[in-house]
Amino acid sequence: MKASDLAAQLGAKLHGEDLEITGCNTLEEAGPNEVSFLANPKYTKHLASTKAGAVIIDREHADHHRTCLISESPYLDFAKTVRLFAEPEATLSGVSRSAFIHEQASLADGVTIYPHVTVSAGARIEPGSVLFSGVYVGENCHIGPGCTLYPNVCLMSKTVLGRNCILHAGVVVGSDGFGFAQQGAGLEKIPQIGRVVIGDDVEIGANSTIDRAALGETRIGSGTKIDNLVQIGHNVHIGENSILVAQVGIAGSSRLGKNVILAGQVGVAGHLEIGDNCRVGAQSGISKSLKPNTDVTGSPALEQSTFLRVVALLPKLPDIYKRLKKVEAAVATLTRGGKGQGGPENEP
Amino acid sequence: MKASDLAAQLGAKLHGEDLEITGCNTLEEAGPNEVSFLANPKYTKHLASTKAGAVIIDREHADHHRTCLISESPYLDFAKTVRLFAEPEATLSGVSRSAFIHEQASLADGVTIYPHVTVSAGARIEPGSVLFSGVYVGENCHIGPGCTLYPNVCLMSKTVLGRNCILHAGVVVGSDGFGFAQQGAGLEKIPQIGRVVIGDDVEIGANSTIDRAALGETRIGSGTKIDNLVQIGHNVHIGENSILVAQVGIAGSSRLGKNVILAGQVGVAGHLEIGDNCRVGAQSGISKSLKPNTDVTGSPALEQSTFLRVVALLPKLPDIYKRLKKVEAAVATLTRGGKGQGGPENEP
Amino acid sequence: MKASDLAAQLGAKLHGEDLEITGCNTLEEAGPNEVSFLANPKYTKHLASTKAGAVIIDREHADHHRTCLISESPYLDFAKTVRLFAEPEATLSGVSRSAFIHEQASLADGVTIYPHVTVSAGARIEPGSVLFSGVYVGENCHIGPGCTLYPNVCLMSKTVLGRNCILHAGVVVGSDGFGFAQQGAGLEKIPQIGRVVIGDDVEIGANSTIDRAALGETRIGSGTKIDNLVQIGHNVHIGENSILVAQVGIAGSSRLGKNVILAGQVGVAGHLEIGDNCRVGAQSGISKSLKPNTDVTGSPALEQSTFLRVVALLPKLPDIYKRLKKVEAAVATLTRGGKGQGGPENEP
Repeated sequence: MKASDLAAQLGAKLHGEDLEITGCNTLEEAGPNEVSFLANPKYTKHLASTKAGAVIIDREHADHHRTCLISESPYLDFAKTVRLFAEPEATLSGVSRSAFIHEQASLADGVTIYPHVTVSAGARIEPGSVLFSGVYVGENCHIGPGCTLYPNVCLMSKTVLGRNCILHAGVVVGSDGFGFAQQGAGLEKIPQIGRVVIGDDVEIGANSTIDRAALGETRIGSGTKIDNLVQIGHNVHIGENSILVAQVGIAGSSRLGKNVILAGQVGVAGHLEIGDNCRVGAQSGISKSLKPNTDVTGSPALEQSTFLRVVALLPKLPDIYKRLKKVEAAVATLTRGGKGQGGPENEP
Repeated sequence: MKASDLAAQLGAKLHGEDLEITGCNTLEEAGPNEVSFLANPKYTKHLASTKAGAVIIDREHADHHRTCLISESPYLDFAKTVRLFAEPEATLSGVSRSAFIHEQASLADGVTIYPHVTVSAGARIEPGSVLFSGVYVGENCHIGPGCTLYPNVCLMSKTVLGRNCILHAGVVVGSDGFGFAQQGAGLEKIPQIGRVVIGDDVEIGANSTIDRAALGETRIGSGTKIDNLVQIGHNVHIGENSILVAQVGIAGSSRLGKNVILAGQVGVAGHLEIGDNCRVGAQSGISKSLKPNTDVTGSPALEQSTFLRVVALLPKLPDIYKRLKKVEAAVATLTRGGKGQGGPENEP
Repeated sequence: MKASDLAAQLGAKLHGEDLEITGCNTLEEAGPNEVSFLANPKYTKHLASTKAGAVIIDREHADHHRTCLISESPYLDFAKTVRLFAEPEATLSGVSRSAFIHEQASLADGVTIYPHVTVSAGARIEPGSVLFSGVYVGENCHIGPGCTLYPNVCLMSKTVLGRNCILHAGVVVGSDGFGFAQQGAGLEKIPQIGRVVIGDDVEIGANSTIDRAALGETRIGSGTKIDNLVQIGHNVHIGENSILVAQVGIAGSSRLGKNVILAGQVGVAGHLEIGDNCRVGAQSGISKSLKPNTDVTGSPALEQSTFLRVVALLPKLPDIYKRLKKVEAAVATLTRGGKGQGGPENEP
């Protein structure tokens, strides 16, 4: 593809000489027929040495490279460019004869089913969806159009997926929630008869798990992105366009709003409300509800600025303790010389 | 089913008018032909507005609703009710022709095998067990009666499951423990030749992993319940009726007693003893053995009451430091006016 | 096998009477025809009571047991012994007729393919590799000689494995990295078109996930060992012979050197450099780069000796606070009696 054609497709403006583009890469690794991008000013230094044939860049830096595609959103336009050059992961089409499709399942035209897939009774799969090898679709699931289920994804019965969802390999949706009642010395299982409902454009990372509701629904809002090895408990509701980074865990019945960001390895206790636009730092433990627009970090979590001040002081704790003992001794000396109140002289 | 029939089945007493029951739900979501329950007094407020046809409830609240099923254990009786209305997850029966069953494997009558299952030589599966699609059963495994292995569960060779175990999708039992010896610059694998033995009525959550012993056995006691994405290292022994919440990790050779509760994301170091009835708060890190009946939280874990006092003070640390500096200055002033011992005036 | 034959194979020296050896076990559990070992002096006490027929041991302890195999590396020699007695996990051979092998895939002689495997177009598998049931190999993957892929392992397209790698059940390699750009109210997926390249002798634990690079490569160095449920983000590079214990998470683009050890549940933020030989304690959170040979623990991580002093003081924080208040009061009294500077008497 010519750089000028790419510019036209992106709505960008070509600045400099035209050339043939065969792929895309970082500034550091791109070759003379690849297009790269500059979005973060921190990397401006790489412009001088890059071998990239062309660079998607903002107007301000347009004179720093021989061939520029001037864009108002270089990162977004680079993402679109990558999509143009990406090879599709799925190269098979149609329905494999090695798949098991229950006679009461319903597959739309244009659905791709790889070998070793199971589709159960009552399941419905809309056009354009692709199920890779080893996928299991339980009874009465509904998979919207344009979804991709990578190998060994498992949807237990009654799960609903919206449009254009991407579930990476090994994802489990609709496993039983973790609910038991004490009965004598043992634990009686509370049957989990609810379901999971997932909106449109949701992406779920490899080997993540989302439990069905005990009663009612576990819900993931449209546009929400979930990374690998994340655990979502039963009856959790997550709003739209939220981001859950890898290894996050959310206990049962908690509610997250829109545009919430939970960084890696965060844990959220059960029955909490996390308001819209909250941001939670990595490894934090959330044990209380958070109002909208709150930033917290820590386990237990503290308001972000408090957290930063506390962790800056933690390494000083030995010094603080030493100084406390010194001042105690000084006060004891002063007091003995004065009113004789005594002090903790015998403190170890 | 009539409410009166349900009451009879539960051994509960019908109070008020009889009616037809078609399902069960929460007080907030139940409809006029559904039965709900009140177990936690916190939710008594929902009784006034619920549309539930009937409520399973204790004697004390029996006058708060038109149709009550009076129970001594409303939560347990509701669990039993849910079980009556739950649809079975497995709707196939018999042994799929798309499964691979080794000729030296032994399947009891009444075993259900879904498509794409593998059962290896020497494996024995007892009556009533159900293996969903993609399950792998290694050489010489023994699966007791009434077990359910959801899709893509993997039992490596020699694993033993007791009666009525439930393994959710993607569970791996019997993978190699993590054992290496330094050899020159590299790491030499210590072969892992032990096995995993799991008792009766054990439930294991989706994508959890339980490693085989290096030598001997990794053991999970009867009645123990394990949530999703939990990691159990080689040679760990867990007692009966313990609870491991999601994303817990237990390092090799640790021993947990009976009725232990580890909340979400807890980590337990290797070679420790955690006594009966210990409770460990979420995200805690256990690096020392715990006597029976100990409650701890924190990383590293502190006794529960100490933990609560410490975390209450952590946000005050900046204030504590400021006050220490102030008192140091005051003491320095007093001392200069007195015995001239000097103070840390130059402290930043 | 005779103890004398085993000694000869190990290059160890038989001390005491010869006997028949049929297996290996711990000192505590070994029987009269099993060989055990003593590597850690802590367990010397078990020598008196062990029923082991023979013990692999250093010269110093050679008189403590009837039959000793005197070794300079008892643990390594025991590991070799275990390997001699270990049964192979794979008992099938050849290519299952229930596998799906694309006609454009290339399998070397001596490759074992279990039932329900998928091998996609352009994939190449070298001699001696074994793919267990449910394994998925994407387009253009290359699997080196002698690799073992346990059940349901998934390699997405273009993944490269070196020689003698072991991937435990449920491992996912080459899933999309977690990359999105804000676009209006929503999140636009950044296509992930890089790949994962894994060296020789790498072992990856059950249900771990390794994301493909956005552009370029995610790399795992030869000899590195990864435990269960570990998450490796896109574009991460890990050096040789490093050890990642269970449930570790590494965010995108971070670089780890050689011989790095991350203990269980450690989290590493993105775009960091962790130098050779660094050791990070369990549950630590790494938010800054670490120079080579650094030992840290904590979240956020502190230098190891500082960490130990801080956590020793944390439980004293309530006492420290009490003593600070006491000294403030004493200073206030002294000051009132002296220069009258006032003090925080009204502090709660």
